[in-house]
Amino acid sequence: MKKEIKKANTKPKKKATIILHSGDFDKIMSAFIVGTGFLSMGIPVTIFFTFWGLNALTKKGFKKAPLSKMNFFGLGRWMINLKMKKYNVASLDTLAHSFKQLGGKMIACTLTMELMGIKEKALRKDLVTDYGSVGTYCYESIDANITLFI
Amino acid sequence: MKKEIKKANTKPKKKATIILHSGDFDKIMSAFIVGTGFLSMGIPVTIFFTFWGLNALTKKGFKKAPLSKMNFFGLGRWMINLKMKKYNVASLDTLAHSFKQLGGKMIACTLTMELMGIKEKALRKDLVTDYGSVGTYCYESIDANITLFI
Amino acid sequence: MKKEIKKANTKPKKKATIILHSGDFDKIMSAFIVGTGFLSMGIPVTIFFTFWGLNALTKKGFKKAPLSKMNFFGLGRWMINLKMKKYNVASLDTLAHSFKQLGGKMIACTLTMELMGIKEKALRKDLVTDYGSVGTYCYESIDANITLFI
Repeated sequence: MKKEIKKANTKPKKKATIILHSGDFDKIMSAFIVGTGFLSMGIPVTIFFTFWGLNALTKKGFKKAPLSKMNFFGLGRWMINLKMKKYNVASLDTLAHSFKQLGGKMIACTLTMELMGIKEKALRKDLVTDYGSVGTYCYESIDANITLFI
Repeated sequence: MKKEIKKANTKPKKKATIILHSGDFDKIMSAFIVGTGFLSMGIPVTIFFTFWGLNALTKKGFKKAPLSKMNFFGLGRWMINLKMKKYNVASLDTLAHSFKQLGGKMIACTLTMELMGIKEKALRKDLVTDYGSVGTYCYESIDANITLFI
Repeated sequence: MKKEIKKANTKPKKKATIILHSGDFDKIMSAFIVGTGFLSMGIPVTIFFTFWGLNALTKKGFKKAPLSKMNFFGLGRWMINLKMKKYNVASLDTLAHSFKQLGGKMIACTLTMELMGIKEKALRKDLVTDYGSVGTYCYESIDANITLFI
């Protein structure tokens, strides 16, 4: 039995952390889709919202997020939303709530809050699970094998 | 001998997965250069082409890809191509084929195909090795230690 | 005693590597803040400066770096610098030197130097710790569990 415990300890843990630096609609969407994907496989996921990404967590954040390349395919945000509806892709709001319900952590970067003058009350309490600094992110990432900067 | 097998099993596997979200010329180039670098060291690499990155796999994709910062150094795409030729840097097309020949996987994101209205026939069959969803990406990344979002 | 050595060898190493592809002020800042965070936890960090990121290592690099989204919050670079001073956030120059003093490696990408026509003398000798190609980056990343593309 002791042997089994040892075996369990040496098995590498799987964990994912994501820094969401971008505030672009398509990148926020990617972060939540990938995050939800890992959570549904039983892998813990933390998203650290920083710089423009933190804006996603403000009250009008999801509604104002621009596309990273506005006219690449001749598709505006409006068009993407329409197509998402057609293909039954969840909205950012639904994606974010699914992510949280599956146990995903959403950490708001306190340094960005100070730099951008964003107060706690401006952020969505239904989404933010914690407030933290770079130390929080690094600590969460020490044992991660999947680390993305979006 | 049994001991040696056990040792081999506990040795952590090395693996790289890349999400190519960007359709910028210089970022596509980075993805293939880094991917080919790992492949040549015997590390398996999967590139998952999504959003603007999927555009790279369409028939005119490489030719239309813009630079992420057009005038940063006063260099246009034209100038970069010229310099690449001068310094004997492989073109995107050559880089992509090298990547595939070394065993690299190129997965086209089916959700992006639906959202952007891109059909299979619009994508390059000489490059795409598979079609997949976010689940495919997550499954490929579970055992990865190198994970990039480009 | 032999057993202990074996144990130490099988414990997975922790290591971080960052590709700094972007030359944006806020992304350079993120790279150094995250890098310094890991270093202060005893985790080795290598930043590989490539494409626009290499520009950060030129003599006027930090002073000319633009914001990735200029008017997102109505904040210009000037405003961010002012706020950074107010909240006692270190300047890019100070962050870069702290990163180096804590043992962080800063590798200048030689392919980018050739493509962009940047000579060694144009780069800051007080910051660059080494020159290298994609092979250098891949070799540094083989044993890494934290890998970011910024």
